[in-house]
Amino acid sequence: MSRYQAPLEDINFTLTHIAGLEDVAKLNGFQHADPTTVEGILEEAGRFFSEVIAPLNRVGDKQGSTLGDGGVVTPDGFKDAYAKYVESGWASVHFPEEWSGGGLPYTVGIVIQEMFKTANMAFSLCTMLTQGAADAIIEHGTPEQHGIYLDKLATGEWSGTMNLTEPQAGSDLGALRTRAERQDDGTYRIYGTKIFITWGDQDLTENVIHLVLARTPDAPAGTRGISMFIVPKFVPDTEGNPGERNDIKIVSLEHKLGIHASPTCVVSFGDAGEGAVGYLLGEEQKGMRNMFTMMNIARIGVGLEGLAITEAAYQQSRDFARDRVQGRKTGSDSAEEVAIVEHQDVRRMLLTLKAYTQAMRALLYYTAAEADFANHAADQERRKLADDRVAVLTPLVKAWCTDIGVDMASLAIQVHGGMGYIEETGVAQLLRDSRIAPIYEGTNGIQAIDLLTRKLPLEDGVVVKGMISEMESLLGELGSYPELEKFGTELGSALNALSDASDWMLTRLSNKDIDDALAGATPYLELFASVVSGWLVARGAVAALSSTDRDSRFNTDWVNTARFYGEHLLPQTTGLLPTIKGGASLLQNAIL
Amino acid sequence: MSRYQAPLEDINFTLTHIAGLEDVAKLNGFQHADPTTVEGILEEAGRFFSEVIAPLNRVGDKQGSTLGDGGVVTPDGFKDAYAKYVESGWASVHFPEEWSGGGLPYTVGIVIQEMFKTANMAFSLCTMLTQGAADAIIEHGTPEQHGIYLDKLATGEWSGTMNLTEPQAGSDLGALRTRAERQDDGTYRIYGTKIFITWGDQDLTENVIHLVLARTPDAPAGTRGISMFIVPKFVPDTEGNPGERNDIKIVSLEHKLGIHASPTCVVSFGDAGEGAVGYLLGEEQKGMRNMFTMMNIARIGVGLEGLAITEAAYQQSRDFARDRVQGRKTGSDSAEEVAIVEHQDVRRMLLTLKAYTQAMRALLYYTAAEADFANHAADQERRKLADDRVAVLTPLVKAWCTDIGVDMASLAIQVHGGMGYIEETGVAQLLRDSRIAPIYEGTNGIQAIDLLTRKLPLEDGVVVKGMISEMESLLGELGSYPELEKFGTELGSALNALSDASDWMLTRLSNKDIDDALAGATPYLELFASVVSGWLVARGAVAALSSTDRDSRFNTDWVNTARFYGEHLLPQTTGLLPTIKGGASLLQNAIL
Repeated sequence: MSRYQAPLEDINFTLTHIAGLEDVAKLNGFQHADPTTVEGILEEAGRFFSEVIAPLNRVGDKQGSTLGDGGVVTPDGFKDAYAKYVESGWASVHFPEEWSGGGLPYTVGIVIQEMFKTANMAFSLCTMLTQGAADAIIEHGTPEQHGIYLDKLATGEWSGTMNLTEPQAGSDLGALRTRAERQDDGTYRIYGTKIFITWGDQDLTENVIHLVLARTPDAPAGTRGISMFIVPKFVPDTEGNPGERNDIKIVSLEHKLGIHASPTCVVSFGDAGEGAVGYLLGEEQKGMRNMFTMMNIARIGVGLEGLAITEAAYQQSRDFARDRVQGRKTGSDSAEEVAIVEHQDVRRMLLTLKAYTQAMRALLYYTAAEADFANHAADQERRKLADDRVAVLTPLVKAWCTDIGVDMASLAIQVHGGMGYIEETGVAQLLRDSRIAPIYEGTNGIQAIDLLTRKLPLEDGVVVKGMISEMESLLGELGSYPELEKFGTELGSALNALSDASDWMLTRLSNKDIDDALAGATPYLELFASVVSGWLVARGAVAALSSTDRDSRFNTDWVNTARFYGEHLLPQTTGLLPTIKGGASLLQNAIL
Repeated sequence: MSRYQAPLEDINFTLTHIAGLEDVAKLNGFQHADPTTVEGILEEAGRFFSEVIAPLNRVGDKQGSTLGDGGVVTPDGFKDAYAKYVESGWASVHFPEEWSGGGLPYTVGIVIQEMFKTANMAFSLCTMLTQGAADAIIEHGTPEQHGIYLDKLATGEWSGTMNLTEPQAGSDLGALRTRAERQDDGTYRIYGTKIFITWGDQDLTENVIHLVLARTPDAPAGTRGISMFIVPKFVPDTEGNPGERNDIKIVSLEHKLGIHASPTCVVSFGDAGEGAVGYLLGEEQKGMRNMFTMMNIARIGVGLEGLAITEAAYQQSRDFARDRVQGRKTGSDSAEEVAIVEHQDVRRMLLTLKAYTQAMRALLYYTAAEADFANHAADQERRKLADDRVAVLTPLVKAWCTDIGVDMASLAIQVHGGMGYIEETGVAQLLRDSRIAPIYEGTNGIQAIDLLTRKLPLEDGVVVKGMISEMESLLGELGSYPELEKFGTELGSALNALSDASDWMLTRLSNKDIDDALAGATPYLELFASVVSGWLVARGAVAALSSTDRDSRFNTDWVNTARFYGEHLLPQTTGLLPTIKGGASLLQNAIL
């Protein structure tokens, strides 16, 4: 099994030419994120994740995290590696400097996250949730809460969790029953059991800060009645140091298909009788709003897992295919056996893997840059535009990248043939790990419904239509590069299909034909994401072709890969139009 | 986890209206396979596999087969269940009566296999390989070999294996090194190590008959120099009873992603020094021909696994979705929570699963029926036609069904949400088990090359063009049923795409543009298989609509499911045309 190497050239190209890092660095507060500094940071990060984190991926899978008497025990080597991660400051790169952060844009932070996830997806989840918890406390916490929790969470000295799901409340959080009782001193007591709590406990940090959704006694039913609480494993004392142990019990860990190193906990609050001590975060009954602060960033983080798995799958498959000698070249007269990377069908698989990493990376970094504009642009209109874009892009990123991640992990097994099916080879783990990403942080079906029913109707469809117009405006430019003519034609067809599908959906929504619209939500999302990624990749190809070193080995290959996406992969999604517009009648009539 | 129930109504419908069981039963030797008798047999078989075999699927996965001092130990319950399987005669249903078989058509045998695979894929592999070994001995063995081995293999009293792969010889068997030295008594001594030997040993039967590919000392290099040998675990004595133990050692078992109950062995022959005793099967240096006797049937058997996994995935997902209450119906005013089977996106997933079982079953049973015609039709021309059809259909069945099997197992996890990722739920096992099928018995890439370079050129393309013409002739009929008009339009477009792609490929082949053709082989296969399945499903829909009970609950639903395949799923494959015809240049220029 080859070890992860950060694809720095591709990362830097995408940051520069697709995410527009230079413009992001001009935003207030990010002035030191100039491309040269960022390149240096990323090179160092690449070394760290390759050398310190990646080697723990297989042991993490084999041993898994286990439940001991004192709580969760992580696999061999995790504790030491985590300490190095905190010490070297990678946890805090994109947090504000006032909270011990590195003050770099999210656009750069996402690359660090990508590296962590590619090196070791299960391990990375601990830090993703910690960052989500920090974001929620930054946004909704009191100055006192900021003081107690933020430094520790931003640096990774403490970890954070999201406690949402209950057995009867999965996709539908409105059904949750965990209750929070207000005490005279303003604190709350929490009672209830949560399931599927990722990294719900561990032995890496001296404290674990649970953010828990619960219902106050007199709250209304459904999601409106939900509040969010900070429930620390050890209640901080007056100095902010971990004090008394809270009444939080890890009941059991799940036996999962993958991400074995990530302990998925059943957590019981208030089991001993007096309730777990909790502190309201933000206002009562505004828990869902807080949750979406964490969730939106987490959704992009989960989308990143699709890229990460595909990057790992590509690297391992490519290295295997270069080494594995098998068969003569079909149609060749030579009796000499060749490495399988010479066979066309293997090249097709590898280039598919590579093209999807390129397309997903484009989509993700672009989304991250828009998020930076949404939060930091001086101009309010630019903020609004970016904010709307991120709203539309988030479900695309989450669902499309994670679906592709599963498919590409599976394809990587195929490249390996029989060896791929043997656990020691390591690609089977990628498939097992990848399969959670379309499920958690809102299933991909929920993402499709979110896109259709909340994002497409933004400003009566003007946000989406504006994106389509902007994408269409690239077509002329593509036509002026002979290499991109075919890409342009295919992107044009795909844009027509997207435009047609969007109009069809908007009409159904305004006619209240909600079932007909919902029936096509998932393929609509797939088409939408494929087209946006195609547009971004085409922009990258234009940038490569118009650069002064357009004939460099890297740029030539980047354009070649882009063309494979545009000419071979993108056209496949136009076949989705009949099912997008197929309506609900066959679904409703089916006996299921 | 719900237990497998054989979908008898759908099976019988497909046998009757798509495979044409009535005509198969008119073939010489199959006169007692009248539909009523067959229905009775299948009902009984369904009960057996549901009650005896299915309950062992999970324990087989958890315990796996293990290697003890005396050889492989199967999971709890397997030995007893296997004895019942042999005793009740299910192993021998489609073998000729002269070899203790049931004398039923392969068209019926394949349904028994489907049930076994759906109930317990890992377990079923033992019997699939045994049947392949029996087929090879029927076809190529001497009367003496027939006498010694066939009764025992056909009934399942003994098991058979295929020993092909070596570390350096996977897809390319020409590279194999195992050697066979002829002795004065006409027997051979075998020396060498084989890997990936499915059910290479077990504790279920009193003997294991290995069919081993090996090279005689003076044989030419490559596949032409390969011979096949019968190498029994216990050398039969003069009475045909298991005698002395042969020099065959099970070195180790692989740790695999799935099919844990199936022991995948490293087998060493002649380790003790004097070689394992082997008997030539057929002629020296005709081993590849023998192998294809086993392999072609085994490829259809592996294709069946795609259907089996999807059927199991569908049944489990449907039952889960009916039970799991979560969320209100989107767009509904009612606060009442509903079972998730009510949500459109869940219905889409379930109907996709269901439609693919219908389409794969149609393709498989039709292929089996053609195989019966190829072997038993009185008319030589009909035999030839059927034989050519089976040649074209075999790679379609193997590759398309197994690829879909993986995708559908993955989709079933998605229907389950978080519960799907927990091993105890059982659907994760389906994904793990499914993933081997695109690899073994010739990777799906090899299938695509086989279709393109050997099957498409049969009779200069006339075989394939004949199939396309026959499919086109259905279009008029579809137009006469209003319900099938849209299906007809989509099938027409897909047929045009297939015709276009086939012409393009034939031109490349005749121009020796072999790389351009190979670059599109995999998507060409996908398009081809989708269209043939669409045609068969459309035939089924016509049969349902023209039957006297066209408005029965079953027929109405069959047509509804067929339409979902034709109107929603089939059109997606027409988007493959650009990549089929995209040529090799981007693949060749890629830096991989």
